[in-house]
Amino acid sequence: MKTEIISIGSELTSGQNLDTNSQWLSRRLAEIGIAVAFHTTVADDLEDNVAAFRVASQRAGLVLVTGGLGPTQDDLTREALARLAGVELVFHQESFDRIQAMFARLGRTMPETNRVQALFPAGAEPIPNSHGTAPGISLQVGSCQLFAMPGVPSEMHRMFEKRIRPRLLSLGLGGGVLLQRKINCFGTGESVVEEKLLDLTRRGHVPEVGITVSDATVSLRILARAATHEEALAQIAPVEQTIRERLGDLVFGVEDEELQESVLRLLTEKRLTLATAEGVTGGLVARRLALVKGASAWFRGGLVAYDNELKFTMLSVPRPLVEAQGAVSAAVAEAMAVGCRTHFQTNLAVSTVGIAGPEGQSDKPVGLVYTALAWKDGVKSVSSNWPLAREEVQSRAAKQALNLVRLHVLRHG
Amino acid sequence: MKTEIISIGSELTSGQNLDTNSQWLSRRLAEIGIAVAFHTTVADDLEDNVAAFRVASQRAGLVLVTGGLGPTQDDLTREALARLAGVELVFHQESFDRIQAMFARLGRTMPETNRVQALFPAGAEPIPNSHGTAPGISLQVGSCQLFAMPGVPSEMHRMFEKRIRPRLLSLGLGGGVLLQRKINCFGTGESVVEEKLLDLTRRGHVPEVGITVSDATVSLRILARAATHEEALAQIAPVEQTIRERLGDLVFGVEDEELQESVLRLLTEKRLTLATAEGVTGGLVARRLALVKGASAWFRGGLVAYDNELKFTMLSVPRPLVEAQGAVSAAVAEAMAVGCRTHFQTNLAVSTVGIAGPEGQSDKPVGLVYTALAWKDGVKSVSSNWPLAREEVQSRAAKQALNLVRLHVLRHG
Repeated sequence: MKTEIISIGSELTSGQNLDTNSQWLSRRLAEIGIAVAFHTTVADDLEDNVAAFRVASQRAGLVLVTGGLGPTQDDLTREALARLAGVELVFHQESFDRIQAMFARLGRTMPETNRVQALFPAGAEPIPNSHGTAPGISLQVGSCQLFAMPGVPSEMHRMFEKRIRPRLLSLGLGGGVLLQRKINCFGTGESVVEEKLLDLTRRGHVPEVGITVSDATVSLRILARAATHEEALAQIAPVEQTIRERLGDLVFGVEDEELQESVLRLLTEKRLTLATAEGVTGGLVARRLALVKGASAWFRGGLVAYDNELKFTMLSVPRPLVEAQGAVSAAVAEAMAVGCRTHFQTNLAVSTVGIAGPEGQSDKPVGLVYTALAWKDGVKSVSSNWPLAREEVQSRAAKQALNLVRLHVLRHG
Repeated sequence: MKTEIISIGSELTSGQNLDTNSQWLSRRLAEIGIAVAFHTTVADDLEDNVAAFRVASQRAGLVLVTGGLGPTQDDLTREALARLAGVELVFHQESFDRIQAMFARLGRTMPETNRVQALFPAGAEPIPNSHGTAPGISLQVGSCQLFAMPGVPSEMHRMFEKRIRPRLLSLGLGGGVLLQRKINCFGTGESVVEEKLLDLTRRGHVPEVGITVSDATVSLRILARAATHEEALAQIAPVEQTIRERLGDLVFGVEDEELQESVLRLLTEKRLTLATAEGVTGGLVARRLALVKGASAWFRGGLVAYDNELKFTMLSVPRPLVEAQGAVSAAVAEAMAVGCRTHFQTNLAVSTVGIAGPEGQSDKPVGLVYTALAWKDGVKSVSSNWPLAREEVQSRAAKQALNLVRLHVLRHG
């Protein structure tokens, strides 16, 4: 049985607002073991609403609708559901009394227009709304169970939690658990990661393993469906272990964890301080570290040296080195890291140089980046070349720098 | 003719990620007069993909698809489109060569799995991707024109702007014009701004004027609907002028322009150099400046001084000052700006100190921020207190610092 979520409103299809209701519902449904196959968003147009409901009722066994239950002329869910079911709208006294009582509690007179909120498709069941005037609607059409809820997030959330979720559980929908584990990697491409995991990512594998890439971070999602939380965990654990064994230190964290959090966790464990000397990233490495709570204990600070002169005066980079090799070179990145470590008096220092664009240099293309790490006994650098937009080059260079710190502390701590 | 946008990915239907691609596309389409009737989001499942494409191709004349074009096994758009059209997938040498060239530029060997990205439904037209390996697909099915684009936002944005939009215009899709002008302000609250513009923001005003606030930046949106671009512009121009007259130097930019862009434009005009000395913002001011193209000409660099010791050694802040007033004080912010200007040898220097949390200090609450600006003849500071989360405090402190620079250069150049 498939599940579909429908959000109604021209403010969504026009792009004015972002549809967060569907995301919220998908997450809540996953918690009770219901996977969502489709989200549909439809403008405030009666025919389009009927069409969307019809498609959903044919391809899905459970449909959750949000929006279109208000009192105004562009609120069309009631009428569209009636047309879908081929029935009339009928007046429901109890719902009407509740709406009036809601207005009375607010010390206001009910406008005549709110009367339409007490109309329901014949045969439908009203769902009381404890925090607003719009009742929800439960309706069976063929083999499809539809629930319509208000679009106002706070009202929708309460109606789902109090009324819909218990109903889904009692209908024996859900019942199981859908549990997801996300494992984040950095340091190689999506296809290289997948090549190591082809047996896991193939279709039909239990649990399901998906792979996505975002700004050079490759994430694996293990999705387990089981009767209980424990069984789902038991499905995930061995797969997570296999992934970790095969990917080794490509893996830096789980769920929403970012590289800088992994770096700060390692610095804290090993009691090592860090400073940054940034060219191409212009403060982004420092910025990301500073986002982490408690960062100031181990991240001491950094220098953004856009002007070459600062590399000489504040990082003691030898002037002839820049003249001989150019500012964007492995040698200068290494000298910056070494100088930064001395000036900031830290255990580790990391540096970035590169060309973020828009223009490259004669012999150096946009996207060329060197990052270097200095520690007590040495210094090393890595280079990359991403022919990307300015912001993307900076973001990846920052990740490369953070990853250099991570791998060093992990391996040599 | 109706338009539908389809986003593909289990990370969307599961609620893990929010579908921002559909919103972005809806906005871009509105700009060329195309209203969107449906958004559909579908999980990584071949049958569901085919079903979603079929429904869309029947109810819409224009369908834009994002996602599912990657090289991995859960990328199913190519195959689903082929099934929809009832054709085979065929290999396209030119696209294959482009993918190989992209890997070559990155200095990497193309994994065998990426070969699938050169497969297209027979009869479809490949759309080159200048910034990624996944080409797009243009396909006519019955009376429906489909365009499939990568799901990675940066790649999708470029492909739409460069390839799809011109095509839509040449096909004569799009009709009237929906034109929006956004005017951005910083330095006061939303209600103060609205009080100055009540006659414009009332409902029914033509053109429509909306007001929104995001991270302390207050934006006014003028929305004009007209038959032609010129008519829409003519609606907008006098309203924009009125807004600018009434708001004066609260206005810093238009459309997506940010404070740092306004700052760098002013620095360039007046030929002034700038450096940053950051405490609470941890590199965010430098980071934002570095995001602007050409920043390095006037933004020389900055210091992130998380560790107090760095304020003494690298900014010459007098140690007794910190002992007497505390690091989070107007006096220390001012001393940092003055010291930064000297050490970095710039015309202007701006500094931030404050408490981003999670914990405050006995006499200083989370959200207390001082920012200071030093110039040739003096120094000044402003303070604020936002009882917000860490990231929000840092972001607003950075904006306050940038605004200090902006107003100074604007007024005293």
